[in-house]
Order: sequence, then C-alpha cells, then structure tokens
Amino acid sequence: MKSLHYRIGRMFLCRADYHSELIDSITDFAKMKKIKMAVLSVIGAVDDTTIAYYDHEKQEYQKIVLKKPLEISSAWGNVSMKDGRPFAHVHAVLSDERGRTIAGHLVSATVFAAEIHLLELIGKRLEREHDPTTGLSLWSLKT
Amino acid sequence: MKSLHYRIGRMFLCRADYHSELIDSITDFAKMKKIKMAVLSVIGAVDDTTIAYYDHEKQEYQKIVLKKPLEISSAWGNVSMKDGRPFAHVHAVLSDERGRTIAGHLVSATVFAAEIHLLELIGKRLEREHDPTTGLSLWSLKT
Amino acid sequence: MKSLHYRIGRMFLCRADYHSELIDSITDFAKMKKIKMAVLSVIGAVDDTTIAYYDHEKQEYQKIVLKKPLEISSAWGNVSMKDGRPFAHVHAVLSDERGRTIAGHLVSATVFAAEIHLLELIGKRLEREHDPTTGLSLWSLKT
Repeated sequence: MKSLHYRIGRMFLCRADYHSELIDSITDFAKMKKIKMAVLSVIGAVDDTTIAYYDHEKQEYQKIVLKKPLEISSAWGNVSMKDGRPFAHVHAVLSDERGRTIAGHLVSATVFAAEIHLLELIGKRLEREHDPTTGLSLWSLKT
Repeated sequence: MKSLHYRIGRMFLCRADYHSELIDSITDFAKMKKIKMAVLSVIGAVDDTTIAYYDHEKQEYQKIVLKKPLEISSAWGNVSMKDGRPFAHVHAVLSDERGRTIAGHLVSATVFAAEIHLLELIGKRLEREHDPTTGLSLWSLKT
Repeated sequence: MKSLHYRIGRMFLCRADYHSELIDSITDFAKMKKIKMAVLSVIGAVDDTTIAYYDHEKQEYQKIVLKKPLEISSAWGNVSMKDGRPFAHVHAVLSDERGRTIAGHLVSATVFAAEIHLLELIGKRLEREHDPTTGLSLWSLKT
C-alpha cells in the first residue's frame, strides 16, 4: 500500500453559508486559507444534491440528482491537489424525512446548514493523477 | 464561509458503558474532562434509538423512534458550547440484521457496545446561537 | 465511561492497492509502520464485500456477502491491539449504482480504489479483551 505521512496543522470548524454550494465552499476555503492537504467531515442539511456512482466497467461516473431536503447523515473526505489546485473528494450518506438513505460520491449540494470539520495536513504536496487501471484520478504515491 | 481554527488537544478512546445513553455519555464525559470543543466519531451497537429529521419549512425536528438492536455503522459529530454547557451534535447511520440503513440527527441511543473517538480542540470558545434563517442553533462565528 | 487519552502521531494518507483486501491492507500497514493505535476512515469503491451484523442475543456475527461493485460511502474505525497484534475494527456504509445503501461491521472488501486516512495515536497500549456481557472483544479500559 502506497502512503505519505503528514503533520497535523490547524483544525477548522466552519459554518457553511446558507444556500452556498458545499463542495465549492470547501475548495474556496482551502484556497483562501492556503490549505494544500486536509481531511474533513460534514454534518448538516442540504436541499439540491447530486451524488454519483462510479461504473467500474464503463469507467465513468453516473449522476443521481436529488431534488428534496436531505440530512447529511455522514460525509467524509479529503483535500489534495489536482491540476495545481485544491480538490475536494467527498463521499456522503444523505437521509430523508423517514430516515431513508441514499449515498455515494458527493458531486454538489446546496447548503441549508452545514458544519464542516477540516483538519489541515502539513507535508509533501499530494497530487492526483490519472490511473489507467481504474480510470480515476488517484493519489500519485510511491510504494 | 465562517470559521474558527483550533489546536489539537487530547485524543480520547472511550468505551461507553453497557446500557448507558450515548449522547448523555458524551456530554457528561466532556464536562468531567473539561472539554469545551471536540470532534468525535462512534462505531458500535445500540438498542433503543431516536433519530430526527429537521423539517426545513416547519423549522422543527421530526423524531423517528427505533425499538430494535442496530449497528452504528457511522456516527460523526462535534462538541461545542450551548447555553454555557458542552453540547454534542451527532449524525448517525444505523443498520439492522439485513444491513438495511436508517439515518439522521442522533437524539438518543441506548448503548450495547460503543467505541467513541473524541479529539479535544483547544482555542476560542465556540457557542451555539439561534439562527433565524434556519431556526437551528448554529455556531456563532464571524466571517 | 472508561477512556484512555493519546497524543497525535503521524497522519497517513494511503492509496490501497487495486484488488487487495482492505482490512488486511490496514493491519499489514499498521504492522509495517509499527502503529499500535490509530483512528481511520476510508472512502473508495470495492468489489466483493462482506459485512456483518452482531446478533445481541445469540452473541455472534451474522455475515452478509455482497458480490457487486459498491461505493464505500462511509467507513470509520480504529486500530488497537488484539492477541498482541494490530487489529482493525471498521464499520462501513456501502452504496450501489442507484445510491441504495447497505451497512454494518466491515469484515472484508476487495479494493477497486480506496483512500485511507489513518491517524496514529501515541500512548498507552490498548488491548481488546473478551467482554462477557456482550460477547464482544472490547477495549480493556479502567474507569
């Protein structure tokens, strides 16, 4: 398994703006605070959400658009660099008024209220690169 | 996006007591250890659980009561201050004997077994205050 | 509630190998890096997955075998010591091409792609021991 190790930087507790787009809020925040790498989690509630499932054979994301208020019952991800810019990779479990869940790769979500916990990591820059085996942009790491 | 940043304090690994109430266990622990702010996760199993969905229009929580053994397949949250006391805000995904899930804001749960990972944050006191836009108690943060 | 507290060590960002077994990858990594205790999360995609539900009355795990590509929409866990070796305890929420979820204790999974965030904890060795009340191997902690 390939890895890099990091020192812990600042832990940010953030309140995302009402009606902002969640993923953009995270990447904009990373740029503003000059954060290169981070791990993050989110709990909250959103309105319009798009998640995606990655088709392993077709090697493409299939989007699922959700046009209703949902709780973010779990969301966890990271910030690393892609094409020279901070890039957020987040997976989420959403739930509705009856507790029913729908989950996947989080493409975008309109914030109703969201608490973001973002832990800055200090160390070697971690870039994503195209992986021919999976078709995904994976971390460029040496064994 | 509004934020505060914190230094990392102690990381506690906790074993919640059999048949204790999970949310009370977390807030009682925070009081005992003089923890003001923290992020936390829980994995484990519970018996009686109440989750809630926040109705964005009515601006009120709708409770869902679950009277059966469930796994805590994901639970993540934070401790901050509300009305001068440590307050735990936790979202959870529960699952049953067939792997079926139900999720939302975690109101209470009776512990069968639970491992709590709680990371203390050191810095400016973070208070919750009523937010008129959402009707929720959100973090009082300046932009 | 019983607890121990730890200092923060290294944060590892790991890219699990294609077609490796996820839980073995985590424990092998802990051995290689001489990690005794850690908390960890995973996002990614897997192919063959086995999860389990712990039957509270029978005091045994019931396995659920999933033979299809799934997203790891949430996975959180810890590494501590069991029988003198690093042991990973991980719970996960998986999701399919329609966003439908299935969740529980993660027994094993074949990696398609997986990003592991593993935070090393430094301090007193934490061992698991048989707990007669639940039948589980729980952390040996004093109140």
